[in-house]
Amino acid sequence: LAGTDWSATALAQRLGCECVGDAHVRVTHVATLAGAGPGGLAFCASDAYREQLAATPASAVICRAADRPYCPVTALVSDNPYLAYARAAGLLHPEPSLAAGRHETALVAADATIDPTASIGPYAVVEGGASIGAGARIDAGAFVGRGSHVGAGAHLHPRTVLAVGCRIGASSVLHAGAVVGSDGFGFARDGERWEKVPQLGGVVVGEDVEIGANATVDRGALEDTVIEDGVKLDDQVHIAHNVRVGAHTVIAGQSGIAGSTTLGRCCQVGGHVAITGHIRIADGVAIYGMTAVTNSITQAGQYASPMPAQEVSGWRRNAVRFLKLDDHYRRLLALEKTVRDMHQRDED
Amino acid sequence: LAGTDWSATALAQRLGCECVGDAHVRVTHVATLAGAGPGGLAFCASDAYREQLAATPASAVICRAADRPYCPVTALVSDNPYLAYARAAGLLHPEPSLAAGRHETALVAADATIDPTASIGPYAVVEGGASIGAGARIDAGAFVGRGSHVGAGAHLHPRTVLAVGCRIGASSVLHAGAVVGSDGFGFARDGERWEKVPQLGGVVVGEDVEIGANATVDRGALEDTVIEDGVKLDDQVHIAHNVRVGAHTVIAGQSGIAGSTTLGRCCQVGGHVAITGHIRIADGVAIYGMTAVTNSITQAGQYASPMPAQEVSGWRRNAVRFLKLDDHYRRLLALEKTVRDMHQRDED
Amino acid sequence: LAGTDWSATALAQRLGCECVGDAHVRVTHVATLAGAGPGGLAFCASDAYREQLAATPASAVICRAADRPYCPVTALVSDNPYLAYARAAGLLHPEPSLAAGRHETALVAADATIDPTASIGPYAVVEGGASIGAGARIDAGAFVGRGSHVGAGAHLHPRTVLAVGCRIGASSVLHAGAVVGSDGFGFARDGERWEKVPQLGGVVVGEDVEIGANATVDRGALEDTVIEDGVKLDDQVHIAHNVRVGAHTVIAGQSGIAGSTTLGRCCQVGGHVAITGHIRIADGVAIYGMTAVTNSITQAGQYASPMPAQEVSGWRRNAVRFLKLDDHYRRLLALEKTVRDMHQRDED
Repeated sequence: LAGTDWSATALAQRLGCECVGDAHVRVTHVATLAGAGPGGLAFCASDAYREQLAATPASAVICRAADRPYCPVTALVSDNPYLAYARAAGLLHPEPSLAAGRHETALVAADATIDPTASIGPYAVVEGGASIGAGARIDAGAFVGRGSHVGAGAHLHPRTVLAVGCRIGASSVLHAGAVVGSDGFGFARDGERWEKVPQLGGVVVGEDVEIGANATVDRGALEDTVIEDGVKLDDQVHIAHNVRVGAHTVIAGQSGIAGSTTLGRCCQVGGHVAITGHIRIADGVAIYGMTAVTNSITQAGQYASPMPAQEVSGWRRNAVRFLKLDDHYRRLLALEKTVRDMHQRDED
Repeated sequence: LAGTDWSATALAQRLGCECVGDAHVRVTHVATLAGAGPGGLAFCASDAYREQLAATPASAVICRAADRPYCPVTALVSDNPYLAYARAAGLLHPEPSLAAGRHETALVAADATIDPTASIGPYAVVEGGASIGAGARIDAGAFVGRGSHVGAGAHLHPRTVLAVGCRIGASSVLHAGAVVGSDGFGFARDGERWEKVPQLGGVVVGEDVEIGANATVDRGALEDTVIEDGVKLDDQVHIAHNVRVGAHTVIAGQSGIAGSTTLGRCCQVGGHVAITGHIRIADGVAIYGMTAVTNSITQAGQYASPMPAQEVSGWRRNAVRFLKLDDHYRRLLALEKTVRDMHQRDED
Repeated sequence: LAGTDWSATALAQRLGCECVGDAHVRVTHVATLAGAGPGGLAFCASDAYREQLAATPASAVICRAADRPYCPVTALVSDNPYLAYARAAGLLHPEPSLAAGRHETALVAADATIDPTASIGPYAVVEGGASIGAGARIDAGAFVGRGSHVGAGAHLHPRTVLAVGCRIGASSVLHAGAVVGSDGFGFARDGERWEKVPQLGGVVVGEDVEIGANATVDRGALEDTVIEDGVKLDDQVHIAHNVRVGAHTVIAGQSGIAGSTTLGRCCQVGGHVAITGHIRIADGVAIYGMTAVTNSITQAGQYASPMPAQEVSGWRRNAVRFLKLDDHYRRLLALEKTVRDMHQRDED
């Protein structure tokens, strides 16, 4: 993991951190507190790691002021060490820059608009009327459908599909295998068969969004499916048609949001969560992994529903009782009444 | 959203609706009741939208006879407005037709059979012995394996994979990234390691089926995995080997069916449902989202199992109690007996 | 399903089975007990199939010694008939061998190292510094990123993506659409927005591993995500960054493991399971489908959590009671105390 070479002081300055200790020490790569070697820059963001901090072989550590006394090497002091670390990692390990231009095997329609600083990879296909912004990157085998737009600095990884008439904002990323703009799941009953409802809306993805590997974001039925700025979707997330995901909301792997639901800003959704259709989730809601959300949530806060795993024989006994939970409650009620009556009679 | 231009009366006739009001008004596109403009055709299928209906700026509305009096513009009266709307949307917004023929970069094996009216897109690969029916469409980068068949009018979207020896029926659709015919998950124990069981069956997909983006349908171990006519699978659905999905069954996003299970006709399965292997689900079963189905279901009806989301502190308290639910039930039983005995003694 | 032609005795010898009955009978393909015809080789591994065994039209059957008396045809006797069957299927139906070499449309970087016995399919892309081992197979449209390694005899199915700097061990398989080495889901808070944490680790996949269709295995944040030898991941499984999956562990479809969790050796994980991040699962743990694992599991054994599906009206009543389960327990406690006191008073 070789990176670029910085002095601790130059890096601290760039990150807006105070540099305590040998300001001239060189850092060349990021590393863990325990696994670092010479030139390694680690971070410490919690008391739980103080022992590792005290013994770190790293050349410098990003840490909070409170942890500074325990740091045996140069400290870059920050209120938010993890954020400073993220930025340091980006500085020490910049993505290799890609030559602008189209690979000779890229198929670009004559009436597509490609910024000369964009990079179009091998076997990529860009259909008519599409536009690709400055510095954007369309990797091997990616597909950009008719009339779609990819914003400046956006990155479509290999084998991604951006269907017709969709928009990806500046600096947004589609990871490998992601599909944006596939048809929403809309069918009208016709006796026992189902008639397809044409999905005529698009998908509008804001700026600085990430859409994970093999994730799917469906186009709207009539209006657009909207992913607002700064949203982060993990791998295999599914966003159905007409959903709106509010800005800076993060959704972990394999979670799904059914059609026409609106998710607020700055929500945090765990993995394997299912959110039903046609509901609203307020801003600032956190949902634990594996939760089923079947009703609107109107208050910020933390919500959960999964049953905890237990040893199978116990689980089997308890799960069977659950099937009669309401009956048991009614028997508890009846018993309370009987006992109250007996007690009353005793008093009389 | 510009479409084709129809008079209300011509459209009504085509849809089998009664046209009430100005029969000459022109409609050019579908729209929502609230968001329509001139030329817009909306629909109203429920009392809940009567206020929006009364105020709609649409040029015409498809609605039930009961809603007709509230409709301020030309009404196309239908018993099933959503179905009529679906068809109207198809008429007003036909898919752009694609020129037949093979893109010069499509790789088609010499012994594959391609109907001259089929369209094979750029960088598509069609292996030997495969056959592609009339009017079928194989999009950019799609893959059709050795000996597979794609029926007339079927559509393989970009980057789909149809493995060797599988069949897609007429008018069926594989959305982007879908994989049909990958190996089933079959392994035989050999001490601590697992030996692969060759997956020698295929996949047979009927007519008028949709398979969603990044969905997976595995090939059978010995016999075929079968998806019957009219089935609709949403994005990221997973169908394991040897499963049979009955005709006109719909399965919402991210649901999975484990191996050798048979799902009946006309079932409706919500999103994020897990159905275990080697069971049978009757015809006409509806399963709510996030339900775990661990036993056969022999009766049509509606079934569910998810726990509802609640605020985390309450959830934590309740979930802990669940782990002792059977104990608590036994204590309730014991208490009932004690109280019965006390009551009896009082009576004596 | 035509295969190669063997005498029962030659096949038995190869499989290490005893051959009982006509040793010269020819078998040409595998089949089910009930569906076999002449030349068919079936297997019987359980008492439940004795009736089918007794009536089988197969030419030979692999079975346990205990089932041999019920076998009307040539028996290949094995302690582990399913394993012997798996091997027989591989012998009778060998994968068609592929010519070594690169398809003329394969794009291989000048400084990639391709073993001359490897096969690189049409429109595959192999970037600089990558290496492809002896007999490996890179199918149509697969992508191998900069510096990655594909071991001897490994197989990347169509449209798979192996991102930069990852390793696939010998004889391992990536099924169609699988993505290995996409970025882990790591972001640092910066006020209301999220800053990307560069994902600088890789993915190391051992030998004899299978990764299912459209599955995703993310690269580590700093160190590698590790999939040990003999692991089998079904379709649409998701493995997050920094996870370690122990050798010979199998994980069924659509299950996900969140970041930095360690799963032991020889575990069996059902479908649609969610395992939270930063925990440890011991060796030899079996987890039922649809289970939520939110804490470490330190003992081998079987674990589960899903609620069983029930008819909707009952589910609704019970689910509502669940929301007050702790209250009801406290009322049960209180009632027990009241009754105890009353009983005591009666005694006095």
